Amino acid sequence: MRLGIDIGGTKIAAGLVTPEGTVLRRAYAPTPAAQGPGAVVRAAARLARELGLDGVTCAGVGTAGVVDPAGRKIAGATDAIRDWAGTPLAQLLETELDLPVLVRNDVHAFLAGELAGSPRRAALAVTVGTGIGGALALDGRVVTGVRGAAGHVGHVPVPEAAGLACSCGAEGHVEAVASGPAMTAALDRERGRGLRADLRRVVRAAGEGDADALGVLARGGRALGRALAGVVNVWDPDVVILGGGVLAAGELYLAPLRAALAAGVLPVLTDVPVVTARLGDDAVLVGAAAAAAEAERARR
Amino acid sequence: MRLGIDIGGTKIAAGLVTPEGTVLRRAYAPTPAAQGPGAVVRAAARLARELGLDGVTCAGVGTAGVVDPAGRKIAGATDAIRDWAGTPLAQLLETELDLPVLVRNDVHAFLAGELAGSPRRAALAVTVGTGIGGALALDGRVVTGVRGAAGHVGHVPVPEAAGLACSCGAEGHVEAVASGPAMTAALDRERGRGLRADLRRVVRAAGEGDADALGVLARGGRALGRALAGVVNVWDPDVVILGGGVLAAGELYLAPLRAALAAGVLPVLTDVPVVTARLGDDAVLVGAAAAAAEAERARR
Repeated sequence: MRLGIDIGGTKIAAGLVTPEGTVLRRAYAPTPAAQGPGAVVRAAARLARELGLDGVTCAGVGTAGVVDPAGRKIAGATDAIRDWAGTPLAQLLETELDLPVLVRNDVHAFLAGELAGSPRRAALAVTVGTGIGGALALDGRVVTGVRGAAGHVGHVPVPEAAGLACSCGAEGHVEAVASGPAMTAALDRERGRGLRADLRRVVRAAGEGDADALGVLARGGRALGRALAGVVNVWDPDVVILGGGVLAAGELYLAPLRAALAAGVLPVLTDVPVVTARLGDDAVLVGAAAAAAEAERARR
Repeated sequence: MRLGIDIGGTKIAAGLVTPEGTVLRRAYAPTPAAQGPGAVVRAAARLARELGLDGVTCAGVGTAGVVDPAGRKIAGATDAIRDWAGTPLAQLLETELDLPVLVRNDVHAFLAGELAGSPRRAALAVTVGTGIGGALALDGRVVTGVRGAAGHVGHVPVPEAAGLACSCGAEGHVEAVASGPAMTAALDRERGRGLRADLRRVVRAAGEGDADALGVLARGGRALGRALAGVVNVWDPDVVILGGGVLAAGELYLAPLRAALAAGVLPVLTDVPVVTARLGDDAVLVGAAAAAAEAERARR
């Protein structure tokens, strides 16, 4: 049995995962993000002990941020968790749990989970939520990149984002127009400040025919489709796997995404299928646990 | 000894390449592009026989177009060579030369040549000429992609190309603003039709302080730098290698390219070095020969 842990900015999930990739038990807790790495590690370890660690041989963690390719440390992160960058997360959790621990970026783990049992020659995963993350896999293995930063498809340029500031500090990246907060901010801008749209309200208004809300979702989907076409032209995958909370917007976002993707790829790439994640929230747990088990096998 | 062949739209080059990657003898001939695949294959074979094939154990070919990952056929191509798409190039040359032949996309071969003897964990190559080609390598090996189409960095969106038609049929790709013909066409447009600028004249005018010419080169370089930043954010390489005829424009193109690349990458990726190709025109010959030799070893 393996332990999978998914550490997000608001929530920690932990699960017991079988070697076949089935999650047997899950537990959740809020992330004490403002209290910094020590508190987050203790909260994750408490959750793991609640599940029971009898028979667990290793633990895999998926977390936001850039994780060093060896799977030990947070190499870079936003402020979603205070002082997260630099945290020697694997070592801290090994001390708490007395288990070998491997850490992966959460979208890298997501893709590993989605591919478990059905490897592809080359895959591209994209998760759309507060940010836009991504991952590449080659011959069934996730590509970490030299610094652990591979797969940042949210940071590809698109004309729809020209002049808009991105969370990374640059300008004009697709995340600045197609993520959840980017679309709610766009609707707020169009209507004047103060309405405090959240994405559910944007989607509800669009469903009722509100032209501004429809326009914001369509522009976001189209921009992401255009960016993904560029990445597909570079990566030539056999599948594009979509996940993340923004997909709840449904076809209002996905139809323009698919249309822009189809319009932007080379003729030889028009048949790349675009699918939604089959494991949902479990993908990160399953993928992180699988990566940890593989690292354990390689060590022996 | 290995044979390397580089089949372009205007010129065929062939060379005898040592196992260490040194080109001992070279020969060149014009490509009979209008006469179709049979004539091109015969011209390449004639060139190879001129070099002398004693002691040659295999041949590698680099050519424009999408090459199937097995290295046998042209899976897709522009009209630069008539009816090139679909040509079973490896088989035709094997019959002519009585040698095992492996075919690669020319930019894939270029990167294999540049990496020969100095492999990297992850590399990105870009060649800028009539088109903009690219290649990715992981752990010293070039990534072909599922259909042989990986590396098409010329077909990434940028705002500078918004509304411009790309050679691939799509709209808004960086090739439509940053390739040689795109920049000469842009200067023609700015000055009114009929002046028939070619890139050397654009570069000369820019060197003399012509504001339109300077603007066209700067916009092209900036657009390519922006697109490459997006690809670096997705691939996380340890080096970006630039090649191709447009680099003759020098700093008028390269300085804005580097500035836009630096401005568009994630903070963790600002140290990725950008270098120009060390082998020049020999890179395709060396890389194709090396790929063929590796395929031969794998077969035994």
